[in-house]
Amino acid sequence: MSILIRDSLVDGAPQDVYVEDERIAEIGRRQEADVVIDGRDMACLPGLVNGHTHAAMTLLRSYADDMNLQDWLEQRIWPQEAKFRPEDIYWGTKLACLEMIRSGTTTFNDMYFFMEEAARAVADMGLRAVLSYGIIDRFDERKAETELKATEGFLRFVRNLRNPRILAAVGPHNMDTVSEGTLGSAKSLAVEEGVKVHFHLAETEREVEASRERYGKGPVRALDEMGFLGDWLVAAHCVWLSDRDARILGERGASAIHNPTSNMKLSVGRAFPYPSLRSAGVTMGLGTDGAASNDNLDLFEEIKQACLLQKFDTNDARVLPAGEAWNMATEGGADALGLPAGRLQEGKLADLILVDLTHPQLVPRHDLTSLLAYAANGSMVDTVICDGRILMREGHVEGEAEIIEGARARAEALRER
Amino acid sequence: MSILIRDSLVDGAPQDVYVEDERIAEIGRRQEADVVIDGRDMACLPGLVNGHTHAAMTLLRSYADDMNLQDWLEQRIWPQEAKFRPEDIYWGTKLACLEMIRSGTTTFNDMYFFMEEAARAVADMGLRAVLSYGIIDRFDERKAETELKATEGFLRFVRNLRNPRILAAVGPHNMDTVSEGTLGSAKSLAVEEGVKVHFHLAETEREVEASRERYGKGPVRALDEMGFLGDWLVAAHCVWLSDRDARILGERGASAIHNPTSNMKLSVGRAFPYPSLRSAGVTMGLGTDGAASNDNLDLFEEIKQACLLQKFDTNDARVLPAGEAWNMATEGGADALGLPAGRLQEGKLADLILVDLTHPQLVPRHDLTSLLAYAANGSMVDTVICDGRILMREGHVEGEAEIIEGARARAEALRER
Repeated sequence: MSILIRDSLVDGAPQDVYVEDERIAEIGRRQEADVVIDGRDMACLPGLVNGHTHAAMTLLRSYADDMNLQDWLEQRIWPQEAKFRPEDIYWGTKLACLEMIRSGTTTFNDMYFFMEEAARAVADMGLRAVLSYGIIDRFDERKAETELKATEGFLRFVRNLRNPRILAAVGPHNMDTVSEGTLGSAKSLAVEEGVKVHFHLAETEREVEASRERYGKGPVRALDEMGFLGDWLVAAHCVWLSDRDARILGERGASAIHNPTSNMKLSVGRAFPYPSLRSAGVTMGLGTDGAASNDNLDLFEEIKQACLLQKFDTNDARVLPAGEAWNMATEGGADALGLPAGRLQEGKLADLILVDLTHPQLVPRHDLTSLLAYAANGSMVDTVICDGRILMREGHVEGEAEIIEGARARAEALRER
Repeated sequence: MSILIRDSLVDGAPQDVYVEDERIAEIGRRQEADVVIDGRDMACLPGLVNGHTHAAMTLLRSYADDMNLQDWLEQRIWPQEAKFRPEDIYWGTKLACLEMIRSGTTTFNDMYFFMEEAARAVADMGLRAVLSYGIIDRFDERKAETELKATEGFLRFVRNLRNPRILAAVGPHNMDTVSEGTLGSAKSLAVEEGVKVHFHLAETEREVEASRERYGKGPVRALDEMGFLGDWLVAAHCVWLSDRDARILGERGASAIHNPTSNMKLSVGRAFPYPSLRSAGVTMGLGTDGAASNDNLDLFEEIKQACLLQKFDTNDARVLPAGEAWNMATEGGADALGLPAGRLQEGKLADLILVDLTHPQLVPRHDLTSLLAYAANGSMVDTVICDGRILMREGHVEGEAEIIEGARARAEALRER
């Protein structure tokens, strides 16, 4: 199957983008294809990569807001999550996929539970995802054993799916909820299986203090001594880091995923140290985190937020310019996940989007990258292609109404449970 | 002319909203009207009020980004503005109006130049606006005289328009660019004419320092001694304020307009002191500022940004909850401008919007206010009514393509000039 996008804007000039099967085969001039898309007045861009999500949390969107992190978790989120059933994860993830497609995301890196159901939703919806079961042992050896078993089972499950769009990762939750032994086993398992480790790192000050008490040093140095840091690590948040921590992450080849909206909404007390991580050469991506702390999965918003937060935090408007944030949301995220995607280049995966440049918010166009970072939102995405298949045309995704109804019904049932 | 919106969600329950001429005549059950709108699966809300804009700056959208404020102004913005012609203001304002209608704004408070052209654009587009000519005398008496004359001329022009949607205000720019004498004359003129004063207050630290040098005290206390503060004052930014300054503004009945995105993008170095202004009982609204420092005019984004910035700045996620930010963008802004709008109540001006609740980002709906603040964006607005006239239905605004083409052409001509 081949797709030809004609005359869309590629790096500032109208070009044709030719997709064959799951790859970008040619950028230039082409005559024919199975499907031809008129790309005039559109920007052709790599699909966005959401580097950190808990997709099925869409079911808890607008359920608990304006609360501090620990109260929010303990009083509102965890009690609801305890009531989740597998079917909820399927519909919640499906809603998240729908929303991500509509706003131009083609890949996401997800950590949650009942992940077989998340995989089923991703398979149905056509996106690309890296999925991990969130390991929490609360320093209990028996729990550790069942959690690692669950992870091994999920890795097997994904392997057997043989779906090129679905990859597994190992997901130890964070240092507060996972013991040193389990962190080590999780990492070894990931390295053996050749998959990534999806982890929450240094999100809160409390986590740093707990690490100091438990290990006598901050999270990054403690994890480094455990041999937990390496190019397998995709670390979400990375807020409470020193310059030295950033350098260690850089030396070990770990990736950092910034979640500015969630960090601000939950008042984690500091901003992602972008300048230090950049100097340290750390691969950086962007994530929305779960919808309950955002409350949408629109990466266009996240790009803008990342730029604004850095400018505010460093008091220097030159920090994190539009182009760098755009790169985080595309090639940075793809590199973190080890995917040949996030770039509009021949040979890369055909994960592409078209943005409608006739929207009044995108006029005039002195600088396309600035427009995309500061003026656009996900609702301006017209067409989405993932793995060489069209998932959205002219803002229309197949089966949308059924997904919305299904997710609504599950959210209602959850509240009444 | 009457309009009936049937079965839309009003304060959580499906109701009919009946509009007669320019007012909301009834909320409840109604049978007939000249125009009937099916409001099912829609939230009916007051139109948003953009409390601080420079509308025609849409022409400079994406022209200069990721620069510090003073460089941005001196190297990029001012040189372009010097080349603006009246026709540019007409098209730039028209594009801004189109964008505001599309994203649910029905009223804006604008300060710029060639304001007769801005008024013409507002008259054509059907929104409500408070317009002021931006007075800058740079401490030159002759300039002061011509600027005040220009303002008087514009007040007369607006009076003669007899357009109930268009009000004039007096617009001394800020303390850095306007002398004490002119500030006094501007205020007196506004009080005589019964109009508002639109002003930039304490946006930057530099402004506070300049005030200390010039007047021996900070801006608020200096202005208070001049008799400049009163319920006529609509003060944009209000970033660099002490608790005492906030109390003074509260006692004088002045209003403060928060512009979180612009403040972050231009790195003004502090956040709007929402908790102090709230304690002081100051009327507060929200603004986008000009598109060159935002880079869109979507107030839904601004509501979210205000909430997030306060949570980040105060390190307390309970500060500025969704409902309070929503009120700033509606009744707060309307109160600041002295308009009987911003509320869905019988007798208020019929400035209304319908938001499409079937968008996947607005599902499920545990709390509508949270959804509107955190999950929505302006692209989810379906219908806009201003002054009892329908400006948008199903996302469609009349003449959109012509406005986009016109604005594009002006922006291009401007660059080549």
